Amino acid sequence: MEDVNLCGGSGSGGGKKKEVKKETGLGLSNKKDENFGDWYSEVVVKGDMMAYYDISGCYIFKPWSMAIWGIMKKFFDAEIEKMNVENCYFPMFVSSAVLQKEKDHIEGFAPEVAWVTKSGDTELEVPIAIRPTSETIMYPHFSKNIRGHRDLPYKLNQWCNVVRWETTNPTPFIRSREFLWQEGHTAFATKAEADEEVLEVLELYRRIYEDFLAIPVMKGKKSENEKFAGGLYTTSVEAFVPNTGRGVQGATSHCLGQNFAKMFDINFEDAKGEKGMVWQNSWAYSTRTIGVMVMVHGDDKGLVLPPKVASVQVIVIPVPYKDANVQDICDACSETAQELKKAGFRAKTDLRDNYSPGWKYSHWELKGVPLRIEIGPKDLDRNQVRVVRRDNGAKQDISRTNLADQIKDLLDNVQQSLFDAAKQKRDACIAVAKTWEEFTKALNERRMILAPWCDEEEVERDVKARTKGEMGACKTLCTPFDQPELPEGMLCFASGKPAKKWTYWGRSY
Amino acid sequence: MEDVNLCGGSGSGGGKKKEVKKETGLGLSNKKDENFGDWYSEVVVKGDMMAYYDISGCYIFKPWSMAIWGIMKKFFDAEIEKMNVENCYFPMFVSSAVLQKEKDHIEGFAPEVAWVTKSGDTELEVPIAIRPTSETIMYPHFSKNIRGHRDLPYKLNQWCNVVRWETTNPTPFIRSREFLWQEGHTAFATKAEADEEVLEVLELYRRIYEDFLAIPVMKGKKSENEKFAGGLYTTSVEAFVPNTGRGVQGATSHCLGQNFAKMFDINFEDAKGEKGMVWQNSWAYSTRTIGVMVMVHGDDKGLVLPPKVASVQVIVIPVPYKDANVQDICDACSETAQELKKAGFRAKTDLRDNYSPGWKYSHWELKGVPLRIEIGPKDLDRNQVRVVRRDNGAKQDISRTNLADQIKDLLDNVQQSLFDAAKQKRDACIAVAKTWEEFTKALNERRMILAPWCDEEEVERDVKARTKGEMGACKTLCTPFDQPELPEGMLCFASGKPAKKWTYWGRSY
Repeated sequence: MEDVNLCGGSGSGGGKKKEVKKETGLGLSNKKDENFGDWYSEVVVKGDMMAYYDISGCYIFKPWSMAIWGIMKKFFDAEIEKMNVENCYFPMFVSSAVLQKEKDHIEGFAPEVAWVTKSGDTELEVPIAIRPTSETIMYPHFSKNIRGHRDLPYKLNQWCNVVRWETTNPTPFIRSREFLWQEGHTAFATKAEADEEVLEVLELYRRIYEDFLAIPVMKGKKSENEKFAGGLYTTSVEAFVPNTGRGVQGATSHCLGQNFAKMFDINFEDAKGEKGMVWQNSWAYSTRTIGVMVMVHGDDKGLVLPPKVASVQVIVIPVPYKDANVQDICDACSETAQELKKAGFRAKTDLRDNYSPGWKYSHWELKGVPLRIEIGPKDLDRNQVRVVRRDNGAKQDISRTNLADQIKDLLDNVQQSLFDAAKQKRDACIAVAKTWEEFTKALNERRMILAPWCDEEEVERDVKARTKGEMGACKTLCTPFDQPELPEGMLCFASGKPAKKWTYWGRSY
Repeated sequence: MEDVNLCGGSGSGGGKKKEVKKETGLGLSNKKDENFGDWYSEVVVKGDMMAYYDISGCYIFKPWSMAIWGIMKKFFDAEIEKMNVENCYFPMFVSSAVLQKEKDHIEGFAPEVAWVTKSGDTELEVPIAIRPTSETIMYPHFSKNIRGHRDLPYKLNQWCNVVRWETTNPTPFIRSREFLWQEGHTAFATKAEADEEVLEVLELYRRIYEDFLAIPVMKGKKSENEKFAGGLYTTSVEAFVPNTGRGVQGATSHCLGQNFAKMFDINFEDAKGEKGMVWQNSWAYSTRTIGVMVMVHGDDKGLVLPPKVASVQVIVIPVPYKDANVQDICDACSETAQELKKAGFRAKTDLRDNYSPGWKYSHWELKGVPLRIEIGPKDLDRNQVRVVRRDNGAKQDISRTNLADQIKDLLDNVQQSLFDAAKQKRDACIAVAKTWEEFTKALNERRMILAPWCDEEEVERDVKARTKGEMGACKTLCTPFDQPELPEGMLCFASGKPAKKWTYWGRSY
């Protein structure tokens, strides 16, 4: 399989591949800080998140990761329903003519488009593309359905698969040829409404990363080079993977302006009977979220799942001794899990009799379950359980009276601790660079670099060219909304021209 | 658009296409009993269920139909979770070599497979197929993951799109090139367990049709000719569309036997350490369900949605008079909708001031909302509301005290009435035929025909050949589990050989 070891920029010269323990063994052969790429490839498989597939760049999403996707989907669906966004489903096929209507758009996506040219043994008269994104598929429909100002705002969303036939560096969850996402597409009478929604959705994406996945992100605006092909401007939440020193575009909320409206004739009559052209947005987050979560929180024992997205938040394991009444202990485990489920937690027992408690500990640690409850004879006697945190290994005996309240506090604490630890690590990787020397030094140290910039496209292209190397070029990640003061007379780190803003730069996925 | 009028077998010689009213008009131009095909094409569009797309055989699922899909999905997901089936997601691409592993299977699907041969401007080294179904995609993974008896049963499900490049008679929801479905794939140690699950899932499909969509179905077994390509046997729920006299395969639950297990090496070690081969099932229902619902319940005013699947069960409409206090009436409408929502119903107001109450009545009738509540000044005075049923137009004034209970009864009644009416119509179309003459007579009358059959594949092929005509050939629909007594000496209606069973025959979608 060509892409087992593919995650870029691993620590200690990834050339030499370590031997992976045979499948029945538990635990990881690779260490996160030593050979990150191998560690990631190993942890997503052994942690039961995905499996490799015989077509390069395509992966199998196993139930353990699909459950996380489902939990995020439930949150997001409820939130966009409040915004009056309706779910729909458009075909995944688009004709060549329609796909090419918006020139910048197709230029951006053309190299990655997969084409269907045959059905059975028959050549199709015209090749048909598989959606890399659905602007061109949906907007002819917008044109037909939007007539008057009362049809606005017009807000659709769909959950679907998309295909981008990437040829370099496929990485499970992070960069794959087929992935799952939601894509929202909306139209407004005014730019002000569109602008407002862009940020409203971006806030939902921040919540997915920070509140659910416990990953700190920066909100900001993408550069002209990095914005959505065909759009007016792109905002994003940007995450960072300290081990590789790479930024990750977490999710994007685009204002498309009126570019697509022009090409697809999306017009409306306003209240005074005058013709107007709509303002449009599109916004998406994908299964990439899951990969970022693994990269940020995982450790040498395996996955570490934030409680909010873990499909099993608490695993209850019996710890019988020879002379103990095994049945009583198992009953206590079942009761405990039942009690927690009743209280609204996702709890589960592992009562299998063909594995030792120790094996089970390792197994559920590998899978990243936030809390483990152990119940042995002593615990029964004392009406207590032992709770072990996955994130820091801390152990604590707690009483079975008001168990649910204590578990709630612990889960909240784990969630917050994961976020705090991730933020501390991320923040420690941020460097400020005011000169080219400072910049290249920070880049070599795998930092995320905040630098004063003249905001010229050519300068970004130049920085890319000058930093091209084994590890990939450096580019802008975003211009954060949270701007430090820009002292008067500050110059661009790269061009020496007057700086217009502080912008984050770095290598990225 | 080539396929606007495509639903087969309409009543009065569908050649002459009636002119459709301009889009702003309400109501349907076509009558269900006069020109069914045109009526269906019109009602799915005007009822806001779908929109046509510029690639033939591909359709846009609008929010009004996607909501129905979502409601069924929620039910089904909860049920299969109880059966310990886990959701996952496999790639939609499959290599030619893997697709062809099971010979009968590929023979069945080959003509409809869409092939990707290019990415960007680059020819792929090997063409890649888009899933028409996922047996061949999933089973190599089964082979890797199933080792011992403790890994069994192994139960996966996915919700996804599939592609079957049909070239004849595309019909919205019923027969399209891309559709949405769930596909369950399971493996067991024994045939008995597999057999049991086949029926357990079939019962869920019956509930979807009968309890949710209010459509009577027959449970039964498909003939050898009609079973799933590569499987051992196929069970199905079969619905019937009286207007066209066509059966519809509603959903299928297949026992695959060990055919795929052989081809994909899906083996396990049993408790005694002996090697065994798994028994497999696969089962699916699709967005076709929605089309069957439209065909069975719709009328000349538009859609008729069963309350259990309607995303709006009750629409509340103010009926102000000149001298009435409009605000009070609108407030009463909002309060009524709120009260119903609190009680768990899907209720909505239509307070738009630019449409008359009459227009709104027609609008929501077209969209099939089960109950309409009208509130006018008199209703306010009397603390009552007027309720109008979509299914039979019955009107009734009910008190606003304990409104929710009364609405519950009404919705239950509508749900049951729809089923009863559909069953009565369906039953009236069933004919028993013991001879070829009776059979052809019944077929000309567009019946679903129960006939004694020798159960020989060649005889079915022969019947198909002899009934080929403008309206399409007749084939077996299913051999119902509910078998009438087969008198001794009864002969096959077609071959004259001894009959082995009663089987349903008919034209079908």
